[in-house]
Amino acid sequence: MNNAELLASFKEQAARIDAVMEADLAIVQSPLLARIIRHAIFQGGKRIRPLLTVLAASLVGPPPADTPRLAIAFEYLHAASLLHDDVIDHADLRRGAKTANTIWGMEPVILAGDYLHAHAMALASEVGGPTAMALIGRATAAMVESEFLQMHNASESIISEENYFSVLMGKTAALIAAACEAGIGHNQGTAGQRAALRTYGTNLGLAFQIVDDLLDYLGDPAKTGKAVGNDFQEGKMTLPLIKTLERANTADRETLIGLLKATPRERAEQLPLAHSIMEKHQGFSLARTQAESLLAEAQAGLAVFGEAPAREPLTGLARYVLSRDK
Amino acid sequence: MNNAELLASFKEQAARIDAVMEADLAIVQSPLLARIIRHAIFQGGKRIRPLLTVLAASLVGPPPADTPRLAIAFEYLHAASLLHDDVIDHADLRRGAKTANTIWGMEPVILAGDYLHAHAMALASEVGGPTAMALIGRATAAMVESEFLQMHNASESIISEENYFSVLMGKTAALIAAACEAGIGHNQGTAGQRAALRTYGTNLGLAFQIVDDLLDYLGDPAKTGKAVGNDFQEGKMTLPLIKTLERANTADRETLIGLLKATPRERAEQLPLAHSIMEKHQGFSLARTQAESLLAEAQAGLAVFGEAPAREPLTGLARYVLSRDK
Repeated sequence: MNNAELLASFKEQAARIDAVMEADLAIVQSPLLARIIRHAIFQGGKRIRPLLTVLAASLVGPPPADTPRLAIAFEYLHAASLLHDDVIDHADLRRGAKTANTIWGMEPVILAGDYLHAHAMALASEVGGPTAMALIGRATAAMVESEFLQMHNASESIISEENYFSVLMGKTAALIAAACEAGIGHNQGTAGQRAALRTYGTNLGLAFQIVDDLLDYLGDPAKTGKAVGNDFQEGKMTLPLIKTLERANTADRETLIGLLKATPRERAEQLPLAHSIMEKHQGFSLARTQAESLLAEAQAGLAVFGEAPAREPLTGLARYVLSRDK
Repeated sequence: MNNAELLASFKEQAARIDAVMEADLAIVQSPLLARIIRHAIFQGGKRIRPLLTVLAASLVGPPPADTPRLAIAFEYLHAASLLHDDVIDHADLRRGAKTANTIWGMEPVILAGDYLHAHAMALASEVGGPTAMALIGRATAAMVESEFLQMHNASESIISEENYFSVLMGKTAALIAAACEAGIGHNQGTAGQRAALRTYGTNLGLAFQIVDDLLDYLGDPAKTGKAVGNDFQEGKMTLPLIKTLERANTADRETLIGLLKATPRERAEQLPLAHSIMEKHQGFSLARTQAESLLAEAQAGLAVFGEAPAREPLTGLARYVLSRDK
């Protein structure tokens, strides 16, 4: 399959996942709660987590019929965490649309996040049993712990690469890895196969986030729906900046650190300068190289499945992560 | 056992539950997260939910050794919902102490609630399996649905008794009933025994909340830690007021409705008037009678256990709910 065919097949499967969520969400009684949840779920999103659950389950044979119901638990967990994140950050926009908290206020949105969270875990338990629940329990704990680490980091102007990856592990990689592992676990994958999927998911998740960081500096706002240099303006240390600080000479380093301690407005004005320093010290290309090597590691993990044709969508997904422009 | 002996035995068991939580919470890594969770859990609280889980399990024989670990999941769920409630309500005080959101702000407290919530469900799944998880899933969904109903009610100045009980079912009774049913389910209780505990828990939970409503008007602030008439001042319709409005003559009814549409300050000033109208139309005594009959129903449900001595703490707890002054 080439990239276009692969994306078309992902789209088709995402549509099937959407249909399963549509049917499942009929249990929500309060009309307002249903509206908020629908807004959180159906306002875009790539369905990467549930897709991974289904693809991972397919690696070892036709997946059980209820696999999509296990898969959607991961999309719900993701949506629940975004609802709470947007309340916490007072975010106005997500995926180019008004956030739920902007439309309905904090109160019902916190509760809607709680509902989705609880519903996801109940669903995972019902369909995936203790295996899925243990994975989800660990992943959600890691997510919250990493938010606390990130909060701690926010009080420091410079964070280390190690620290950056620790946050990423919890924030993005843990749930993606759990989605993969739960999928193959649901189809009776062996411990070795589960470990391979965990490696794949972890590395894919890390690479996914690094590509996000790169798109923030290098992406086309018309495609990403976000302003260029948003992370820098907020003083957020992401990998391109960390790589640059590791290698820059004293003068460039001090310029960047000065900007990180300046106001958001000053940072916005000096974005071209910061960009040129990061370019000069290969901050972008080094971050990209790291994403590539993480994706290579992700794929290498799949070697245990031999030449199984079901590997192709997973390697294709890794390729897509690297080539995506939004 | 008389009331004093019973309370002493509850205190002893609550201390054991606290010790299990202490040990369990050692897994929390972030120091700030740990502090918030400890504040949420160990700043008072009667441990009624975990106590019920253990007592219910004991009804059909010595409970499995891991029952307290299942029990604490219900205290965690309760604490998680209080953390989020206090953020939503911008509450300053709970149990006479500063709320977590007052001390640490909204951001980490929403996340700490999420952590406790996820951890509770993972624990319940690990110890109680699919039975406990299904109960918790339903109870947490009911909790959120009832908050939406309550939000909807808040936009109406008068709510019906039916509506009041619908909110209560989700807000308080659902989780208490689940704590009871999970306990006996964990000790291999039959479907009939589980249903009895569900009835017991539901009615106990409803009565518990009605007594709370009564204490708000009639309690001693030195004991309850809350100002008298707080609910009325906030314009909150609770059972004594609902009962009064059902029976009052037109003039008294209109006085009360006028006050419900007035400002909180006016309501605070007119509390003595409202109180005397409610007294006159037996709002308090009718609410109390209803709590008594709910508790009688709760106890009647336990008849299936015959004269089992393990029934005594549960009937005693029902008695305590009615006689408590804080």
